[in-house]
Amino acid sequence: MNSINSNVRIVLVGTTHPGNVGATARAMKTMSQNNLYLVNPKEFPSAVASARAAGADDILANASMHDDLKSAISDCQMVITTSARTRSIPWPMVSPRACAEILADFNVGNVAIVFGRENSGLSNEEMELGNLVLQIPTNADYSSLNLASAVQVVCYELFLKCHADDGDAKDEKVTYVSQEKIEMFYEHLEECMIEIGYHDVNYPRRLMHRMRRLFNRALLDESEWKILRGFLAKIQEKQK
Amino acid sequence: MNSINSNVRIVLVGTTHPGNVGATARAMKTMSQNNLYLVNPKEFPSAVASARAAGADDILANASMHDDLKSAISDCQMVITTSARTRSIPWPMVSPRACAEILADFNVGNVAIVFGRENSGLSNEEMELGNLVLQIPTNADYSSLNLASAVQVVCYELFLKCHADDGDAKDEKVTYVSQEKIEMFYEHLEECMIEIGYHDVNYPRRLMHRMRRLFNRALLDESEWKILRGFLAKIQEKQK
Repeated sequence: MNSINSNVRIVLVGTTHPGNVGATARAMKTMSQNNLYLVNPKEFPSAVASARAAGADDILANASMHDDLKSAISDCQMVITTSARTRSIPWPMVSPRACAEILADFNVGNVAIVFGRENSGLSNEEMELGNLVLQIPTNADYSSLNLASAVQVVCYELFLKCHADDGDAKDEKVTYVSQEKIEMFYEHLEECMIEIGYHDVNYPRRLMHRMRRLFNRALLDESEWKILRGFLAKIQEKQK
Repeated sequence: MNSINSNVRIVLVGTTHPGNVGATARAMKTMSQNNLYLVNPKEFPSAVASARAAGADDILANASMHDDLKSAISDCQMVITTSARTRSIPWPMVSPRACAEILADFNVGNVAIVFGRENSGLSNEEMELGNLVLQIPTNADYSSLNLASAVQVVCYELFLKCHADDGDAKDEKVTYVSQEKIEMFYEHLEECMIEIGYHDVNYPRRLMHRMRRLFNRALLDESEWKILRGFLAKIQEKQK
C-alpha cells in the first residue's frame, strides 16, 4: 500500500444534512479513508449522522472541526476542490482517476479533497484556495450527485490506485483441469454422441468444434469434469 | 455512445429501506442509466424514495416491478450478480472496471446487474441465476458499502467506459440465449439425468448447482444450446 491514505483528508464544507455527513463517513471507511474534516456543518454531532454512518462512527468521532475552510487546510500541500458545474473561470480540471494518479505519482505531502454544500457547492473564494478542481464525469442532463456518492466515487478511485496490485477482485482458488483431461473429455463426449446416434462422423457438421469452443471457454474445474464424465459413462452404460 | 446504457438494467432485490431505492435512482441517473427493476421491495412507491431520488423520480415512476428475480431477468442474456463477501462456491469474480470492459466488448444483449438486500445480499438460489459475480474492491475490515453507493460505483464505471469508447465499432455477432431458454435447458438436463439414473433427487449432492455454475459461466449461444438440447433429446429417445 502506498501513502495515499494517511495523507489525504476529506473536507466537507457547510454540509446541510447530517445524514450526508454520516453517509460520507461510511463511504470513506469502505475505501480505507479515515480523515474527515468538517467545516461549519449545520448540525453536528447528530444522531442522524451516526445512524447513517453505520459501523463508521469512529470516523465521525475523530472528525476534525473547523470554522472555515482555510483553517481546515492550513497544513496541506495540495488542495483539490470539487465542482459539479463548469465555472466561468477556467480552472485546471481533473477526473477522479487522474486525481488518484496525481496523488500516487507525486509525494505532495498533506492533501485535502474538498466537497461543498449540497445545494450551492463551494464559493468562489473557497475555490480559490485550491490547486486543482476535481469533477466527476456525469450525465450532462443530470449531474446531481449526492454528496456521499461523490465522496464514494473519489475514494474508490484512490483505493484502486492505492491497491493497484491487489485491489481487483480475484478469482478464488479453483483447480482447472489439465489439457490432457480436457482431451479425454472431448473423446469421451464424441464417443458417446456416436454411440447413441447423435453424431455422425461422416456428416460431422461442426458439432465437436462447437462443443470444444463451449467447454474451452468455460474452463472446466475438477468437479465439473468428474460430473460430466460420470454422466457420459452412465449414458453409455444404459445404451448397452 | 455504444450500447451499454440502453441494454443494462439495475435490479434491486428485496430492498428494505425505500430511501435506498430513491438514492439508487439518483445514482443511476447521474450516470445515464435509466432502467430500474425492483423485485419485491418492502415499501414502494414511497414518499421517502421519491424525496431521496431528487430529480430522478422519473426513474422510479418507470421502474419495472417483479415478484421474484427470475421474472425480472427472464429476457436477459447476461446476469451479473453482486456480492460483498466471499462465497464458498467459487464463482468467477469481476471488478466493476472489468465488468464495464466485458459489457463494452461483447454485444451480449440484455444485461441485468443485480443488487441484493441491504443486510443479507442475495440468496444462493438467486446467485445461481447469474453468469458472473461482481465485487467492488473495498477495505477488507469494513466492506459495508451502502446500496446506492455500490450502484453509484458500478454505474460510474459503465459511464466512463461508455463514453471512452464512443464510436468504436464492435465485431461480435454471437447471439446468446435468454434466461428463459437457459432454464429450459437446465430442466431438460435434470430430467434426462434422472431418467438415466445418474441424478437422484433424494440425494442431489450439488450436481445441478455445479451444472448451473458451469453453463452460466460459459454463456451459451444459440447453436450450442440447440446441440445440447438435441443431445439430451437423443439420450432420452434411446432410453425409452
